[in-house]
Amino acid sequence: MVEILIAPHAGFCFGVRRAINIAEKASLLTQEGRRVFTMGPLIHNPQEVDRLRGKGVEVLSSADGLREGDVVIVRSHGIPPKRERELRRKGLTIMDATCPYVKAVHEAVTQLAKEGYFVVIVGEKDHPEVVGTLGYLEEAGGEGAVVERKEDLREVLGKERVGVVAQTTQNEAFFKEVVGELCLWVKELKVINTICNATSERQEDVYQLAPEVDVMIVVGGRNSGNTRRLYQISLSLNPRTYHVELPDELQPDWFKGVKRVGVTAGASTPDWIIQGVVEKIRELCS
Amino acid sequence: MVEILIAPHAGFCFGVRRAINIAEKASLLTQEGRRVFTMGPLIHNPQEVDRLRGKGVEVLSSADGLREGDVVIVRSHGIPPKRERELRRKGLTIMDATCPYVKAVHEAVTQLAKEGYFVVIVGEKDHPEVVGTLGYLEEAGGEGAVVERKEDLREVLGKERVGVVAQTTQNEAFFKEVVGELCLWVKELKVINTICNATSERQEDVYQLAPEVDVMIVVGGRNSGNTRRLYQISLSLNPRTYHVELPDELQPDWFKGVKRVGVTAGASTPDWIIQGVVEKIRELCS
Repeated sequence: MVEILIAPHAGFCFGVRRAINIAEKASLLTQEGRRVFTMGPLIHNPQEVDRLRGKGVEVLSSADGLREGDVVIVRSHGIPPKRERELRRKGLTIMDATCPYVKAVHEAVTQLAKEGYFVVIVGEKDHPEVVGTLGYLEEAGGEGAVVERKEDLREVLGKERVGVVAQTTQNEAFFKEVVGELCLWVKELKVINTICNATSERQEDVYQLAPEVDVMIVVGGRNSGNTRRLYQISLSLNPRTYHVELPDELQPDWFKGVKRVGVTAGASTPDWIIQGVVEKIRELCS
Repeated sequence: MVEILIAPHAGFCFGVRRAINIAEKASLLTQEGRRVFTMGPLIHNPQEVDRLRGKGVEVLSSADGLREGDVVIVRSHGIPPKRERELRRKGLTIMDATCPYVKAVHEAVTQLAKEGYFVVIVGEKDHPEVVGTLGYLEEAGGEGAVVERKEDLREVLGKERVGVVAQTTQNEAFFKEVVGELCLWVKELKVINTICNATSERQEDVYQLAPEVDVMIVVGGRNSGNTRRLYQISLSLNPRTYHVELPDELQPDWFKGVKRVGVTAGASTPDWIIQGVVEKIRELCS
């Protein structure tokens, strides 16, 4: 009989749960004949986004087709303040599902910029959260750079006063490395650790679980940065790590002769998908 | 024929050279019948301290025997401000040889304390420089801790806002490690890198030189913290590393069959000792 160990913090975080609640509430407005949209997928999980679409919450990639009276949900990753003003000017109803931990990053970069620091955001250049944060940095009149790889530090090393924040779902080990490097090169460094608790807990789970099991399954959207990082951490500890979005992707030969399987999931992975994966593993191992 | 490679930045740093100049100048006052003292050895090199004693500069461990009109040299490591006031109250002439880079550490902890940070000094608990810096922290009404080993971080991890400085001659790798650890644990971290350039350059030399030679000789006082750290770094890169204070300590069997010898020296090691060591190596290898 295979043993399946589910990471204690697998799945939805506070910010995602909150965003989905807001979207569910917004969906009720469709009964009054109003159109409800999210700007980009609400969370980085296609299946959950489909589920909400079934309730009338549509995904938009551009604001072009919107008209007065439409409801727009700002997703958990947040948006640049300039963008928010544009939407409001169109006479749209804005429902803000920006994660409070992401708002804390916006406040941190605003504060650092006002204190005159060159601001380093440790994160993914194209991630919507980072794009939103850069918008707040610009709003505060600040200068800065996104550091995704160590090479990105090159343009920072000449600066005298550097402030550092992180995308909420960053890899802690990489954040630590960047800060360690910077502290030797710049005269004054101010670090506000904005990696959220949910991220630390999920990563900590993987450090504990991955070395203890024969196979590790990481469940979540392929477009989910935090899921990809759980996968990378797990892979570095256990070569038999697989990233799946859905139960059907599980391959029987991954589980041949396997006694213990670990399962974790990104912060945007709904419980019903995690459950589906666990059931499928049980089926394949029986 | 053995090849001897001397590290480009071996020996006296700016602050030590300056302190010795001040002591030489002070020694002239003995010709006017005044007594000249340093509080503790001027630098951590017994031989250079002896040379200055020959010129009338005596070393004191306590201020008890001092009387009005005596000249007291504050050594390059600096002293707590309270101590300086005590000396002045005795009617002594103070000649301040505190290294300007050490003064910068005093300013940094004062600033951090005033900004309300809990101040971490990465350094040796009993080193006179750290004792002096702690005096400035106390003067500013600040709270803090000295971190000499990773375990010392335990009492810091509960703090929300932490400021970090370093003893000027700290190991950069350890400083980096401490800052990296702290940035994950505290909410806000402000780092002022006070490791002096002379320290970075000497350590960088060792990283370059030690792996390239058969034997590495580190020259300097056994009581010199920065020399000991050069020794530790070198040892981690080349097991055939030896720390000597004087040429006579060199052992013939260290150099059997050796083609390349590297030599470096701490910031308080005078040129005449480095030269003596180089000549002795040549003799033993000939």
